[in-house]
Amino acid sequence: MEEKIVNAIQDEYPDDFAWCYGCGRLNEEGHHFRTGWSGEKTVTIFTPENSHLALPGFVYGGIVASLIDCHGTGSAALALHRKNGHEAGDGMEPPRFVTASLNVNFLKPTPHGVPLQAIGTVQEIHPKKFKVETEVFANDILCARGEVVAVVMPNTFLNK
Amino acid sequence: MEEKIVNAIQDEYPDDFAWCYGCGRLNEEGHHFRTGWSGEKTVTIFTPENSHLALPGFVYGGIVASLIDCHGTGSAALALHRKNGHEAGDGMEPPRFVTASLNVNFLKPTPHGVPLQAIGTVQEIHPKKFKVETEVFANDILCARGEVVAVVMPNTFLNK
Repeated sequence: MEEKIVNAIQDEYPDDFAWCYGCGRLNEEGHHFRTGWSGEKTVTIFTPENSHLALPGFVYGGIVASLIDCHGTGSAALALHRKNGHEAGDGMEPPRFVTASLNVNFLKPTPHGVPLQAIGTVQEIHPKKFKVETEVFANDILCARGEVVAVVMPNTFLNK
Repeated sequence: MEEKIVNAIQDEYPDDFAWCYGCGRLNEEGHHFRTGWSGEKTVTIFTPENSHLALPGFVYGGIVASLIDCHGTGSAALALHRKNGHEAGDGMEPPRFVTASLNVNFLKPTPHGVPLQAIGTVQEIHPKKFKVETEVFANDILCARGEVVAVVMPNTFLNK
């Protein structure tokens, strides 16, 4: 299992797309999720903050859902970037995805105070649409399983 | 449509259950979602913070998912509390639910800078399990639709 993401796709997003509260490097108050490859899987590692509680001792489900969400769009971007012949870190601008749907099954209470590892499997279901199945582990225990359908961001998002 | 929740179920949770990052009144850094009845529907109103962006101008999906999550558990608590003969505000301790599953479909980009209204329909599917269908509106436009299955919190959650 990776302990640190070296080449994260979010490091490569253009500045205009780097404000996401979940994964934007320019959002000072956000979570700064960073997603990279680990073999054929994708990985995001995140240690929740002290305030990210459901109850004392357990992580808030909305944080787990957020992790799965951005891990999904980041994984889709990694996959399409690779399909296009590129890797995070090679200096090429990657595609940017948005979430069409997010499903999370909470399997066990997620313990607070340890790093969470989101491990994803990416599948292309259409040239502009990817499905990412994600498992979230804490202390190597599977705590949640999620699925994101991510689509290439329409150009209209920046033309508001 | 309600503009303010007067009697929120989260105001009635015992202190030990009031630390949720989404809806706990004692979590100083959390979102403080508050959920009440509006006729036979349940309502949570939340205005995202400046940092809660997907892109400039649009709300982060993880915040919408968090809103649907806590709106779901809060709505389930309201419904079971009512079934037990009580209402938020009558001084009786309500039941507390946890999320078993969370599904969100993002229908339109959610505009940032306006209050979001989560409107829920609660259905009992087992004496200890409720399903909450939620629609999230911004400027009266339906932006996301979600479903939460919420179960009565096991006693083990406080016996860690």
